[in-house]
Amino acid sequence: MGALDGIKVIDLSHVLAAPFATMIMADLGAEVVKVEPPFGDDSRQFGPFVEDEAGEQQSGYFISINRNKKSIVLNLKEEKGKEILRDLISDADVVVENYRPTTMKKLGFSYEEMKKIKKDIIYCSICGFGHDALEEYASKPAYDMVAQAYSGLMSITGPEGGEPCRVGSSIGDIMAGHQAVIGILSALRHRDRTGKGQHVDMSMVDGLVSVLENAIARYTMEGEIPGPLGGAHPTIVPFQSFKTKDNYIVTPIGNDSLWKKFCDALEMPELADDERFKTNPLRAENKDELIPILAKRIKEKNTAEWEEVFEEYGLPYSPVNTVDKVVEDDNLKYRDMIVDLEQPGIGKVKVAGSPFHLSETPGEIKSHAPAKGEHTDSVLKGSLGLTDAQIKEMKSQGIIG
Amino acid sequence: MGALDGIKVIDLSHVLAAPFATMIMADLGAEVVKVEPPFGDDSRQFGPFVEDEAGEQQSGYFISINRNKKSIVLNLKEEKGKEILRDLISDADVVVENYRPTTMKKLGFSYEEMKKIKKDIIYCSICGFGHDALEEYASKPAYDMVAQAYSGLMSITGPEGGEPCRVGSSIGDIMAGHQAVIGILSALRHRDRTGKGQHVDMSMVDGLVSVLENAIARYTMEGEIPGPLGGAHPTIVPFQSFKTKDNYIVTPIGNDSLWKKFCDALEMPELADDERFKTNPLRAENKDELIPILAKRIKEKNTAEWEEVFEEYGLPYSPVNTVDKVVEDDNLKYRDMIVDLEQPGIGKVKVAGSPFHLSETPGEIKSHAPAKGEHTDSVLKGSLGLTDAQIKEMKSQGIIG
Repeated sequence: MGALDGIKVIDLSHVLAAPFATMIMADLGAEVVKVEPPFGDDSRQFGPFVEDEAGEQQSGYFISINRNKKSIVLNLKEEKGKEILRDLISDADVVVENYRPTTMKKLGFSYEEMKKIKKDIIYCSICGFGHDALEEYASKPAYDMVAQAYSGLMSITGPEGGEPCRVGSSIGDIMAGHQAVIGILSALRHRDRTGKGQHVDMSMVDGLVSVLENAIARYTMEGEIPGPLGGAHPTIVPFQSFKTKDNYIVTPIGNDSLWKKFCDALEMPELADDERFKTNPLRAENKDELIPILAKRIKEKNTAEWEEVFEEYGLPYSPVNTVDKVVEDDNLKYRDMIVDLEQPGIGKVKVAGSPFHLSETPGEIKSHAPAKGEHTDSVLKGSLGLTDAQIKEMKSQGIIG
Repeated sequence: MGALDGIKVIDLSHVLAAPFATMIMADLGAEVVKVEPPFGDDSRQFGPFVEDEAGEQQSGYFISINRNKKSIVLNLKEEKGKEILRDLISDADVVVENYRPTTMKKLGFSYEEMKKIKKDIIYCSICGFGHDALEEYASKPAYDMVAQAYSGLMSITGPEGGEPCRVGSSIGDIMAGHQAVIGILSALRHRDRTGKGQHVDMSMVDGLVSVLENAIARYTMEGEIPGPLGGAHPTIVPFQSFKTKDNYIVTPIGNDSLWKKFCDALEMPELADDERFKTNPLRAENKDELIPILAKRIKEKNTAEWEEVFEEYGLPYSPVNTVDKVVEDDNLKYRDMIVDLEQPGIGKVKVAGSPFHLSETPGEIKSHAPAKGEHTDSVLKGSLGLTDAQIKEMKSQGIIG
């Protein structure tokens, strides 16, 4: 049983932010019907690719974020296609989309229109700068990279004093996707108590600004414009990544007693006695002298050797795992965070699992990512009561697929 | 009215992951009672600091993530303190904490114990590797930096070919905080329908592994171990940040027709005709020849000048905003994403607003971040019916504060 069993979501989403939101909801038990245009979700064309039995290239990108969903194909340029969407909405709890703000309006599916179809619908939009935005912003195209750059997150990520770097995953899309789920679940609670639906108007830039954390306070309270700090903590030393002989390791040495142990672990007890490095404020002040000494020493052994030493001394540390290590990690396997998805015509595909470890209703992967239009027939027959003949005719007319 | 009005949360959280979760819930209307130890949430000692009327340094860090909450001080080392906590739990819907897995157990507040106090309680824990984890992992200390390193996120963030970088905000804590809210709201829905509570067991490492996005597919499907890519997209060119005369700008040029316009905007139409750069696959193949040409040109003007040009040509772009620009941004102000929090004894403090733009029940900042123990008296009188005399006695005994 899933916590969100019984919730019906019409998913007019593409690529990443909104598909991520509906994936989370589907993992938790919601019924998600993904409505794709005849050419399919754009991300079906995104690599990495995996070959199916028929020798066709299937998108691993699409597969990894669309499990547990149904797919139907609707041509919303046709009036009859719009009529079917209206019928689907009238039976749904939630609609999610991430087109530009004007797109749904042009199609005749603004929130105002949707309310006429179903009074208490919860309509969640995700876009770059918000539906309710200043005019010159509302029409701007949204890419993850734009959100990362515009929000300030990129300006604080990267090597110290160096170029700003994008977070290696599309965190602008993904954060907004998570926030959309929180907004939707909150709105569902409000609906259940009051009978009222609402518009959940999420923005990718808002989403990242809300997670800048102490960077905003550092500027507004101390006047400092924060820049990137590489792998290091702004004020605690040594709380950063170091290069080992073969890779990297982080050593968050958060207090002076850990510092003493750390020096012993490095077999450099003389450092613990060095007046320049006795307390954290001193280590921060004399960082430029200290870090090269530590860096030189840590480079002498492999990551695995240091792990063993730091474990023995009870120090906090972590290897900077590359993705191959993550996929093979024992605890992540135990936590079902790396799972085999059985994909028809392809076989087992490894994807990230659900992080929602709820003791009674855990997030679960129950079915594969759908082929384009895989559920057109079953959904239109089951939910809308269409006949085989009607479906056949609409297919021949290019209204559904 | 808030969407989560009526939900009572007992918040045994400190520093970041769980406080972020309870902040989101408080912004959306939940009643959050933060239970602090006599020495207070550790993050009250974290900078940046702001001076109050009395000349005391107050933590801007604490203020920025604890608005809308109540604070009571309880000494859980005293049996009487535990008794008060039990009384509070018996009246609550949700308990949230982010200590090490063993801490709550030692205090006598494991989920098994809490269930005895309130049968349908939703108990959410956030820790590094999960409560239900392999033995050697469950006891590991959790820092954001450990989660970023262990999860693989750091290995894909940073300059191309260079050192792995930490995401500039504590995304390991913050992602887990968001996922905890999704878990809690899902569990509340399940409770409302079935009467059953549950343990929501969130892990910071799980949380980041679940958002590695295509990095997992790139490894498991194509055998590539993804590394950091700086400010660039793995396969689309030019989809990256460039240095301008005064700052940086990103230009996500996603297709060939944008490429032509981009060349015109740069006043380099000859590039559009260059056979080496005609299509995206060619541009990707000949990236090492193309990027230096573009980089040289873009360095000739300021970011603001390029913004004007790119706007005129209808190109997607974004300045790589620093935090000062973000705080002054018109649309972010319009969206209430940068708001003044009126903090007693300090005055207005700028913090990030709520990204939850719900048309009927938006996230809101209604009250300041509490002083340590500011609501001890009112909560214990109001919720537990204690008298002034009882409160005075327990204060003198160091049980409450």
